[in-house]
Amino acid sequence: MSQAEHEVRTDGNRGPGDAEVAALDAHWRAANYLAVGQIYLMGNPLLTEPLRPEHIKPRLLGHWGTSPGLNLVYTHLNRVIKQRGIEALCVWGPGHGGPAVLANSWLEGSYSETYPDVTRDADGMERLFRQFSFPGGVPSHVAPETPGSIHEGGELGYSLSHAYGAAFDRPELLVACVVGDGEAETGPLAASWHSNKFLDPVRDGAVLPILHLNGYKIANPTVLARLPEHELDRLLHGYGHHVLHVTGDDPMTVHRAMAVAMDTALDHIAAIRRTAREEGIADRPSWPVIVLRTPKGWTGPGEVDGLPVEGTWRSHQVPLSGVRDSPDHLRQLEAWLRSYRPEELFDERGRPRPDVLAWVPEGVRRLGSTPYANGGLLLRDLPVPPLERHAVAVDRPGAGRHEPTAVLGGLLADVMEATSDRRDFRLVGPDETASNRLQAVYGATGKAWQAGTLPTDEHLDRHGRVMEILSEHTCQGWLEGYLLTGRHGLFSC
Amino acid sequence: MSQAEHEVRTDGNRGPGDAEVAALDAHWRAANYLAVGQIYLMGNPLLTEPLRPEHIKPRLLGHWGTSPGLNLVYTHLNRVIKQRGIEALCVWGPGHGGPAVLANSWLEGSYSETYPDVTRDADGMERLFRQFSFPGGVPSHVAPETPGSIHEGGELGYSLSHAYGAAFDRPELLVACVVGDGEAETGPLAASWHSNKFLDPVRDGAVLPILHLNGYKIANPTVLARLPEHELDRLLHGYGHHVLHVTGDDPMTVHRAMAVAMDTALDHIAAIRRTAREEGIADRPSWPVIVLRTPKGWTGPGEVDGLPVEGTWRSHQVPLSGVRDSPDHLRQLEAWLRSYRPEELFDERGRPRPDVLAWVPEGVRRLGSTPYANGGLLLRDLPVPPLERHAVAVDRPGAGRHEPTAVLGGLLADVMEATSDRRDFRLVGPDETASNRLQAVYGATGKAWQAGTLPTDEHLDRHGRVMEILSEHTCQGWLEGYLLTGRHGLFSC
Repeated sequence: MSQAEHEVRTDGNRGPGDAEVAALDAHWRAANYLAVGQIYLMGNPLLTEPLRPEHIKPRLLGHWGTSPGLNLVYTHLNRVIKQRGIEALCVWGPGHGGPAVLANSWLEGSYSETYPDVTRDADGMERLFRQFSFPGGVPSHVAPETPGSIHEGGELGYSLSHAYGAAFDRPELLVACVVGDGEAETGPLAASWHSNKFLDPVRDGAVLPILHLNGYKIANPTVLARLPEHELDRLLHGYGHHVLHVTGDDPMTVHRAMAVAMDTALDHIAAIRRTAREEGIADRPSWPVIVLRTPKGWTGPGEVDGLPVEGTWRSHQVPLSGVRDSPDHLRQLEAWLRSYRPEELFDERGRPRPDVLAWVPEGVRRLGSTPYANGGLLLRDLPVPPLERHAVAVDRPGAGRHEPTAVLGGLLADVMEATSDRRDFRLVGPDETASNRLQAVYGATGKAWQAGTLPTDEHLDRHGRVMEILSEHTCQGWLEGYLLTGRHGLFSC
Repeated sequence: MSQAEHEVRTDGNRGPGDAEVAALDAHWRAANYLAVGQIYLMGNPLLTEPLRPEHIKPRLLGHWGTSPGLNLVYTHLNRVIKQRGIEALCVWGPGHGGPAVLANSWLEGSYSETYPDVTRDADGMERLFRQFSFPGGVPSHVAPETPGSIHEGGELGYSLSHAYGAAFDRPELLVACVVGDGEAETGPLAASWHSNKFLDPVRDGAVLPILHLNGYKIANPTVLARLPEHELDRLLHGYGHHVLHVTGDDPMTVHRAMAVAMDTALDHIAAIRRTAREEGIADRPSWPVIVLRTPKGWTGPGEVDGLPVEGTWRSHQVPLSGVRDSPDHLRQLEAWLRSYRPEELFDERGRPRPDVLAWVPEGVRRLGSTPYANGGLLLRDLPVPPLERHAVAVDRPGAGRHEPTAVLGGLLADVMEATSDRRDFRLVGPDETASNRLQAVYGATGKAWQAGTLPTDEHLDRHGRVMEILSEHTCQGWLEGYLLTGRHGLFSC
């Protein structure tokens, strides 16, 4: 972290005390332990006996590299959710880090409530481990069945547009979004940064992007991680963000910095909302982004077979690949697992100890239990007006001319009208609303727009529910995020 | 243009004198006249008689809005190509502006050489006009049959990656690339700005992006045009560029500013090349980008039927749509065409007058005649080694294990070796070269990389011909640009 920058930007947040940091670290270690366990173990989950080859899965599949970073974000989101009593959802862009999201949802209890056979104790821990990326088990990536997820891992590019889609028309919601530096190279992601020109600070929720620079994709460094920091900052400023940096490889230092950054970001978001909602919107706000630089495969094996692994691309998937056959690798794995001091984290029955759960929120505030990630719980029927109102009278066959999509535009205007208070319908497209002759809809709502305006502009509206940008990827991501969180919409292209 | 910025950045270039500006303006007016003519006319091309409805095409199709900007760029590229004797190619991102590119290629003579029935005189001008977007004629967008084009108009997103693909391994080539502010919203384009981290100033040519902010897409303002200038500058700095602004709506002022910006950009590029080639590469260079802000539909009708058109989205396609039926529209069209003073631009036989052609380059230096846009002229057979060298010996069926793609990797290494001087083969993919077991190729060449490096990195190479970025759109665009300019490659994903 650039200390000078950091001091300027904390807005007086001094960070947590030692006891709080210790509890955060305990949670993080527990999540890391559970992530490693899922990748490797099918027995002996609490290491109550020395690790033997038969405890190891015969085929090792999973992504360790991103997992400690995701665990850190989950841990620190828990803290601010609990401390501030906020409603939050998180989109995990590096969704190949399934072990991390599963670990956290097990720790907080959401997993066992959703899947009662995977109990929050030693038996359940063994099931959690064994089922991961195993025949008849669960996918190695974040998937629809992962509690709290609306975003499938693996298809990179849509995390940020999904996050914005989830935030539209949810004025109290915080949508955190982890963007990996691999995903950040893709087109759909690169385009979606500009979504903040369409986010209404009055009627929409907030999106907090957390750009996780662990430095590597599969076998290469990433572009953004290898830019000079001032160049990356300019890029993010150019995307319209206020930048908060968290950088390091010492866990306690990073916990403190991350807590300060989260507090600063949430204070900033609260101030933006207050200003917009109480004083009216003036300029487009500069929303915060957190740039998190931590080593890929952090806390994993530093070196394997003489080659550096932690902090390099070699930690992307399974850092120790020969555990069943190589006694050296087996010893390294056991030392790695024991480095988290599992006996401090879980009681003799395998239940997380109270310290580990000190900052875990409760009930539907938990990221794995939020109804916002389970749209079916929130969805209401769309009020579609009687179609007869839009029937085209045909007196004689072949005697008149009508545009079917213009008629549809009138129907859509009625739907917009009927949802003007509920705000659960949006029309999305790559600037084709008028081309497609749907422009009657502008009688009921305008086009979402928070950037600059000119007197000649038409139908631009800070609170509009028609959304137009030329990126069809962004359109698709916005609408998908909106629908998966329990609303309705139409993609017109 | 921000005058202060501009003064800092011209590197002593003072711009052209009055006569030079007058000639540039004559060329630009001629191109604008020919663009309007293509959209509207099927007779009376030189306006030798008053315009009548029967001179107008029955169905009007084409894009005027972007055309005057493209004409400006073509005119000013001509100037620097001729003045400096350089080899250049241009990728026209707003390729829906077919009338502009066709107009320029007709003016410079490339069109008539390629299509001898469309002569560079009044008869040919009438054919040029009539055939445009007409049954049996030519497409309204830049298309494969358009002289000098490697980039199909209409599918937005790939202009910049095509430009980089064309520039790789062409050390003397300048590839200009007009990026429209509509296209700039798309994912493929947004990702491709980072292509400059893969451009080798020693072995590759230069790419000069010209970001044309005419402010509007089809029916909406564009995001980039509505950012405060300092925010846009930060974005472009963050993409690794040095920014030159040209802004205005007074033609003479813009001609001068554009000439200065082009000279400054080309001096800058020459300095980057000289430093890298004579002194060795030190830091990654900050390549220039020109931000051109001119009105959409510039010099077209200011107002039609009481609504503003020039400088708004209403000029995107056909600004006057009722010309055959409305005497008012017909009068406006005639006044618009005559505003370019065609009698000063074309002689009585319809040939461009010498002043108009003063800055047009000759022969293969013309943008419409460059062999770099006609890859078949430059393509050489790929030296593929005898396959027997890579045959896998099979002594007994089913007795051994081999990875077919690892064998392919060995073959690709041979191809890389055989083309190490010719440099006309590249391997492109989204970080899957090693995953696909092709890593033997690294024995012959490395991975192209101009960003920061660490001691633990492997196979990164400023002059490498393996290209890896997670954007498959960028991979696709790079390889397409490379192949269409007469080289070979493989996409491994």
